[in-house]
Order: sequence, then C-alpha cells, then structure tokens
Amino acid sequence: MIDFGAETLILTHDAMAEGVHYLAGQDPADVAWKLVASNLSDLAAKGAEPLGVLLGYQLGADDARFVAGLGEVLAHYNVPLLGGDTISATGAQVLGLTALGRATHRPVPSRSGAQAGDTLWLTGPVGAAMLGFEALKASNGDSLAYRRPTALLAEGRALAPVVSAMMDVSDGLLLDARRMAEASQVTIDIDTQAVPIATPEARRDEALRWGDDYQLLFALASGTSPTITAHRIGRVLPQGPAPLLLDGAEPSGTLGYEHR
Amino acid sequence: MIDFGAETLILTHDAMAEGVHYLAGQDPADVAWKLVASNLSDLAAKGAEPLGVLLGYQLGADDARFVAGLGEVLAHYNVPLLGGDTISATGAQVLGLTALGRATHRPVPSRSGAQAGDTLWLTGPVGAAMLGFEALKASNGDSLAYRRPTALLAEGRALAPVVSAMMDVSDGLLLDARRMAEASQVTIDIDTQAVPIATPEARRDEALRWGDDYQLLFALASGTSPTITAHRIGRVLPQGPAPLLLDGAEPSGTLGYEHR
Repeated sequence: MIDFGAETLILTHDAMAEGVHYLAGQDPADVAWKLVASNLSDLAAKGAEPLGVLLGYQLGADDARFVAGLGEVLAHYNVPLLGGDTISATGAQVLGLTALGRATHRPVPSRSGAQAGDTLWLTGPVGAAMLGFEALKASNGDSLAYRRPTALLAEGRALAPVVSAMMDVSDGLLLDARRMAEASQVTIDIDTQAVPIATPEARRDEALRWGDDYQLLFALASGTSPTITAHRIGRVLPQGPAPLLLDGAEPSGTLGYEHR
Repeated sequence: MIDFGAETLILTHDAMAEGVHYLAGQDPADVAWKLVASNLSDLAAKGAEPLGVLLGYQLGADDARFVAGLGEVLAHYNVPLLGGDTISATGAQVLGLTALGRATHRPVPSRSGAQAGDTLWLTGPVGAAMLGFEALKASNGDSLAYRRPTALLAEGRALAPVVSAMMDVSDGLLLDARRMAEASQVTIDIDTQAVPIATPEARRDEALRWGDDYQLLFALASGTSPTITAHRIGRVLPQGPAPLLLDGAEPSGTLGYEHR
C-alpha cells in the first residue's frame, strides 16, 4: 500500500509453484486463471479496483494454453497485463504475479482492525474448492470452484466503507480467522454451525479448514449491517489466551494447511 | 506504465532463475542485489524514481544470506520492500521482483523514440561484468561488477528530459541497440572503436556482446548535448535493410546472448 498523488495504490504479489499450489499436469489455462484470481482476491479484500497485473512466467509444458487462460481471466475481470518477464529454467514451474489496484475507500480495510464487540461475517460458503479439487483428481464431477476461483471485487468494494477488518479466506477459514485475530490483537469466536458450507454436513470440519475458496471474512462494529448479503459466523472478543475459539472452546488439531 | 492523476507510475518485473541468470552456488546476498539492481535499472532507463519493490521468493540454499543481501541493496538505494510472497518448490530456484517507480519526466523515455539524425550515446564502459563473471568463476580477482551491478538512477533522471530514446544495456550492447533500432523503426550504426570498454582492446568484440553491465544507451536529437558525462558511440539512420550496423556494415555472427 502506497500513497501516490491523491490516490492510494494497493500492490499484491503471489507466487505459485507446480506441485505445491497446483497439480503437475493441471490445465495451464486454469493455472493462469487461479494465479490472477488469487491476486485480485487480495485486492478485493482491500476494497480496491484493479488497474493491471505484471507476470513472471517460467516456461512450462503448454505455454499456449497458459496464455489462453491468461487472456480469459484478464478479459473476465477487465484487467490489463502491464508487463512482466518470461524465463526458462529447470525443475518445477514457478509463477509470480503482481497485481496493482486503486483503493476505493480510505482508510483501506486491513486484517488488523477487528475490535472486541464486533460481529464476524463471511460472504459465502467454504468447501466448494475442496469438492472441486476432489472432482479434478477423480476426473469426475464439477471442479470449476477449484480451477477457476472468483475474486469478489464488487463485494469487497461494497464492504470497504463499513468493515472494521477484512481479508480473503485463501488458506482456510480457521487459519485465516486466527490470522485476523492475531493481527488485530483480539480473540475471534466462530459459531461453527453458522458457517455456510458447500459440502455435506458430515464434512463441515474439513470445509472450515480447506483453502482456495476466496470468500471474504470481515468484522463489523456492533449495530452495523453488511452492505451485501453475508453470513454472520461469530464475534470478536477481547484478547484472551487463545486467538481463535470454536463455539467458545479452544480448537484442537490443525486449523488448515500452512503451505508457504 | 500507467497514468494516475497527475503522476505516471512505472512498473517493471524481472524474473531470475538459478543456473540461467545466476550461478548455482552463488552467494544469495549477491543474487538479491542483482535481482533488485536489474529492476531498478529498468526504472533508471525510464527516468523514474523508485517507490518500492515486491518480491516473489522461492526458498533456497541460504535464505538468511538472501535476506541480508536484500537488506543491503534496499538500503543502498533507499527503496522499501512493499510486500511479496514466499514459496517452497523443488528444482532450480526462481525469483521474481516487481519494482514500482514514479516518472520524473514526461513523456517517459522509451526505446522506441530514436529518430534518424539522432546521435547515439552510452553512459560508461561495457565488459566489466564479463571480467567480473570470469573472476567469480576462477575465484580470482574482482568480481564486484558482475555480482553487484549498479542501477544508474541519478543518470537516468538527469537524461530523461533530453533523450529521444533510452534503455538499459542488460543483454549486451549490440543486442539491445538492435532492439532500440527495431522498436524505433530506424537503423542504428555503432562506431565500435568509440565504445568505451572495461576490457583489454583484444576483447572489444566480446565486451560489446556481453550483458549485465546496466549502462544506459540513449539517443539525442542532433545538436543536443547529454546532461551528464557520456560517450558518443554512433548515430541513428533512416530505417534500412538491417536494423544494426557496425562501422557502416551489417554485423555477422551473434550479437549477444538471448536468454529468456
């Protein structure tokens, strides 16, 4: 984030590696889509309007497919490719994308602004990407939610003026909620039954821990209503011994996958 | 390049791969330096003042050394790290850096503005990085010019108001001069004896073809003098059959190394 003239610029950079962030052998067009959408999702969480992207591209198995997917996702979000670099190297493919956006509301929402007394909200269901991933691996069923995630740009812009904190849920709801709590120096208590899920009820615990859904998680001051349809999933408490509570109790086991 | 209110923003992205752009086993502090300096050199060629960088970092053999070198180069150029992403992957390390700058002069210099009748100039000698590379491989002698190149930011800013075209010489003087000629739809004729070189005279041909020196190559309208000390190395002609001439004749053989 950088003030520039009368504007505030938002910059994000995400890197993705074959075999870590996407499957070796996955359609490069889908990889391009996800690379762009995940960065635009970071802009969405800041209430920013995208201005363009720069790509660091390592040549891979099917560069034409990558370029096709890149064209699709940039057209879908109406975002220009401003520049970048193409290199050739051995080993797993590594891709990087920088996205540049313009803040539409200041102060720019951050993950560190949640206050005790706030309510906690989520824009939509989690677990869809998990089901999509399973469908892709099994070559059976609808894998779109995993392959072509949606960056909630309009939602982020609508919410920016009213939230006390906001972030996108890319690494799993519980892990990211804990990050918000830690950044805000509060405790977040999630009402697990209130979280909308895209999976059968039996897989609720997994859906809360899986990533790649790119929903927006946000906090609102008591008495403030969300400016778009959203789901109230918990509350913000004064900082206690644990940053995250599930239904009032400290969670046991893993919260999600902490890939780097 | 993007206009933003009263300002123009310059964005560059360079990626580097182990074994291609730097030696496997090279000091990661030097790799960090070169990654930053090469991007800042792109800003220098646009007459831009750096505002910050974003790093896409793949974990490597000695991350602490990389971070140390990154700190050194950012402090040297007084440029903040605005953000980035760190990932883990197999295979050759791949690094990406986005640099963001503010244009200090408009129109922003580009490689496409050279005009027939212009004179052609270079800020300083080429071949120093070649000698540095050889010293590094031999573990004998001064390798600084290869390991820690200089981005000519002050020079680029001083030249921006007077040049008709400008670019940095990162891939070798001849290759980059041809690119300027092609982008400008002119022919460039280089007076090879006038090119300042850091090597013995016997290696002049190599010095003109080696990269990594990051000197600035620029064109000036006839009668215009450079605003800093520089070397006049040729002239710009109307577009002929060959984009690049050496002492009036079409060059034979390779112009440089075209790694991607």
